[in-house]
Amino acid sequence: MSSRGPLTGASRLRYLPLGGLGEVGINMWALEWENKVLVVDAGLMFPQEDMLGIDLVLPDISYLLQGGKEVLGVFLTHGHEDHIGGLPYALKKINVPVYGTRLTLGLVKPKLKEHRILRESDLREVRVGDTVQLGPFRVETIAVCHSIPDATALSIETPVGRVIYTGDSEEARCAHCGLQLHQCANCRGIAGPFERIFNEAPSRIVVANFASNIHRVQHLVRMAAQFERKVAVVGRSLQQNFKTARELGFLSVPEGLTIPLADYERVPPSKLLLLTAGSQGEPMSALTRFAAQRHPFINVLKDDWVVISARPVPGNERMVHQTVNNLYRHGARVFYSEVGNVHVTGHAQREELRDMLKAVRPRYFIPVHGEYRQLLLHSELARETGLGVDHIAVVEDGETVDLTAEEMVRGEKVSTGLVYVDGLGVGDVEQVVLRDRRHLAEDGILVVTLTLDRDTGTVRAGPELISRGVIEPELSVRLMADARKEVLDNIRRFAHSHTDISLLQETIHDAVSKTVYRQTRRRPMVIPVINEI
Amino acid sequence: MSSRGPLTGASRLRYLPLGGLGEVGINMWALEWENKVLVVDAGLMFPQEDMLGIDLVLPDISYLLQGGKEVLGVFLTHGHEDHIGGLPYALKKINVPVYGTRLTLGLVKPKLKEHRILRESDLREVRVGDTVQLGPFRVETIAVCHSIPDATALSIETPVGRVIYTGDSEEARCAHCGLQLHQCANCRGIAGPFERIFNEAPSRIVVANFASNIHRVQHLVRMAAQFERKVAVVGRSLQQNFKTARELGFLSVPEGLTIPLADYERVPPSKLLLLTAGSQGEPMSALTRFAAQRHPFINVLKDDWVVISARPVPGNERMVHQTVNNLYRHGARVFYSEVGNVHVTGHAQREELRDMLKAVRPRYFIPVHGEYRQLLLHSELARETGLGVDHIAVVEDGETVDLTAEEMVRGEKVSTGLVYVDGLGVGDVEQVVLRDRRHLAEDGILVVTLTLDRDTGTVRAGPELISRGVIEPELSVRLMADARKEVLDNIRRFAHSHTDISLLQETIHDAVSKTVYRQTRRRPMVIPVINEI
Repeated sequence: MSSRGPLTGASRLRYLPLGGLGEVGINMWALEWENKVLVVDAGLMFPQEDMLGIDLVLPDISYLLQGGKEVLGVFLTHGHEDHIGGLPYALKKINVPVYGTRLTLGLVKPKLKEHRILRESDLREVRVGDTVQLGPFRVETIAVCHSIPDATALSIETPVGRVIYTGDSEEARCAHCGLQLHQCANCRGIAGPFERIFNEAPSRIVVANFASNIHRVQHLVRMAAQFERKVAVVGRSLQQNFKTARELGFLSVPEGLTIPLADYERVPPSKLLLLTAGSQGEPMSALTRFAAQRHPFINVLKDDWVVISARPVPGNERMVHQTVNNLYRHGARVFYSEVGNVHVTGHAQREELRDMLKAVRPRYFIPVHGEYRQLLLHSELARETGLGVDHIAVVEDGETVDLTAEEMVRGEKVSTGLVYVDGLGVGDVEQVVLRDRRHLAEDGILVVTLTLDRDTGTVRAGPELISRGVIEPELSVRLMADARKEVLDNIRRFAHSHTDISLLQETIHDAVSKTVYRQTRRRPMVIPVINEI
Repeated sequence: MSSRGPLTGASRLRYLPLGGLGEVGINMWALEWENKVLVVDAGLMFPQEDMLGIDLVLPDISYLLQGGKEVLGVFLTHGHEDHIGGLPYALKKINVPVYGTRLTLGLVKPKLKEHRILRESDLREVRVGDTVQLGPFRVETIAVCHSIPDATALSIETPVGRVIYTGDSEEARCAHCGLQLHQCANCRGIAGPFERIFNEAPSRIVVANFASNIHRVQHLVRMAAQFERKVAVVGRSLQQNFKTARELGFLSVPEGLTIPLADYERVPPSKLLLLTAGSQGEPMSALTRFAAQRHPFINVLKDDWVVISARPVPGNERMVHQTVNNLYRHGARVFYSEVGNVHVTGHAQREELRDMLKAVRPRYFIPVHGEYRQLLLHSELARETGLGVDHIAVVEDGETVDLTAEEMVRGEKVSTGLVYVDGLGVGDVEQVVLRDRRHLAEDGILVVTLTLDRDTGTVRAGPELISRGVIEPELSVRLMADARKEVLDNIRRFAHSHTDISLLQETIHDAVSKTVYRQTRRRPMVIPVINEI
């Protein structure tokens, strides 16, 4: 990409990555032409370990809320959480039309209902192959092969040329752009191991999967019918998706095959298939609680065969391993990525990405979805297919790219980032709070209170010391006594009127911090509180 | 293993796993015969994410300190942290002779010095092949192939038969037990990719490795000499190990090949090899700081070729990926497990474990080192080689096994566990503190203070509310005001003398908790402090 400055004037197409470039999950981007903005996808991600206490992470859409921008709508490519999960939060701030296929909107609706905004939302169903004109953008949906049905890529005609967004697709079918649908990669290589498991399992079969991998669920439902096992679905998200996909005709389930979870004991164990979510070892998920025998209804039994049919997302390995340990401890047999070969990734592999590049033969290329290392490796693939370095842009969230028919240059940087959801709060936990939480997590807190007579400057009560997370309570007595003495020694010189409170607080803070550090090498947060009377 | 109870009387050999069975790292176990105890290894592990603020984790050796036990000594098998790192802490509690090979003791000494116990420690060097009689135990060291030189397995003659401990070895040589040394697995398969890197790198080569992988360091030193690159060592632990191994003759370095780190700019980039530790992305490690351009002396440059020559330990993937992202962002080329094929594991693989079982043909088998899932899979290998289920014991820390010449049965469970090191404290952070730290990390803390007149029961100052880690300060004003009002409303009824302080505290706690939960769905720790005057 040319390194000269952004194009001036309005006659350039701006590509604006709002999320998912530089991290995995919050996929959301936009195209802008003369202040008219088309948004694609609205994902969420689950917090990483250093985001203490955070429930969810969203992309920052404040750019879209700026005056002078007309947001035409949000186009959803498919129904995975990392593409639709952030939609309710976005619509609450900017209620625009939402375009998506039947299943995608079907999976969106329960979310909007939960957020109490379903009624006022403007959902517009499109079929695969449909074309929608949105201001200067003509959006055509393209059938693609992915781990969820009704998934699409997008071909978007713009004033400066066509933008093709392959999304998560492994392969796409598109007459215009020369793509052909091959055998769906997602269905390859799975039948074998599952067949063996259905043939040989002596008792219950339990399969944990991503809740949105409808293709895998369909495959398992077929296997269950063939091997005459009843199917029970465990876990709220999977039950919801199972229901939606079945109602909309994307999941074909023979009558009488499924049983309510509550009835599982009426079926002999060798005639039962349990489908669960929680393949990532999430602490509150059905599988994790099942494995630890903490599930209210159903728990692991000896001779269960448990298949974890999704590779751990990086960072989740330890949690998955804990679940595997628990399953083994209770006598189950476990098949997971490191043992059996039962997972086929939902995302395109290197060879498929190369094929895609060769089929589309783009003039310009911007890799999306992933950490920087993944974007860079994808850009190297594009180099290998013959694209020049000026025709490739490796950018991260907020780094816009300006396009004309003639060139692609780096645009201005717009403000983006991660928005944290914690309980009811969206964006009210930011760096100050997280820094405090990390400090508290590391060494705990020590509160020192005393009551000061404003007139005489004498201490009327305290100092009292209370610690949490610093040292085991029964061992704290000496440390607290020493710190208290240190405070008293240090504040003696303040015993006159017109005491400078902030100086007194600082003195107490330093005296306590030093004593604790000297004895323990810990640095708890120290908070002096002075009540004046 | 037979399921009947422990053997009574003293004439049984007790196998006692103190650590490393059920988790990875704190390898330590013992054999006991008539109250005489031989200890093998004393490892440490680095904390997992949920062990907030913890620096190190040690095995619990309180069993060894019980009256009536005579600990004969500690035998160290090799110089890796997970086998020697806990030794200084153990020796401080129980100063017994320490046996190990030259390099192993060489790596132990700086640790004892740092803990100021080198002088009083009783280190006894053994050579590979030596036999040492320790009470009823006759210990023979066996040469093994591992990623560190001078590593041993142990063959221990006991009153009930011979115990063979293969340790971390991939292959072992032992005339008695029928083992033969094949080509060292650790040296296979590495030359190729490194050769390519030394041939093609246009500028600096940086290789990150485990600090104790001396074989790898030796290989790289040879490559550097061959390709005429100078070697600079980055990072304290690697520098220390490099020095020790060189002084003791386990690392052969041509004169003039190494340069002090401070001199690196005097060498052309294409003539430089940097060796660093930090292959696991540890936050304070040399490589992490190098990649983030936060190292005081040396930082990543465009065109550096960086090789991360160790697979991430499960749980460390995300940190390693962050380091890789940073290296790429600064224009380096990176080779790591998912891209290049430059790592060969230091630990035995399935086939080697099977060969070992076939060579030793044990009568009884106890898998060691690892999480439960790994122990179980290892036990299944033993089943496959023909060992009966009564001859295999899968046990975790503290689950003893009693052995006679005739049988192996489950013994009593002894108290073990993880001992946390935090700063200077060893064992003064336990579950109460960690639970508090987790609570603080999740939702922060809110301290409510007020001063109460003991005689009249009236509030003389406050309530004052201070929060940390709950909500961004600029957004907290309304929440704090509401909570304060709620406290005042609730404590009004206490406005008389003889106030029950603990009831008042509870009232304040509940009033604040409810207000905060209602408005935010968060549950910070709430601490009411009442100063009485």
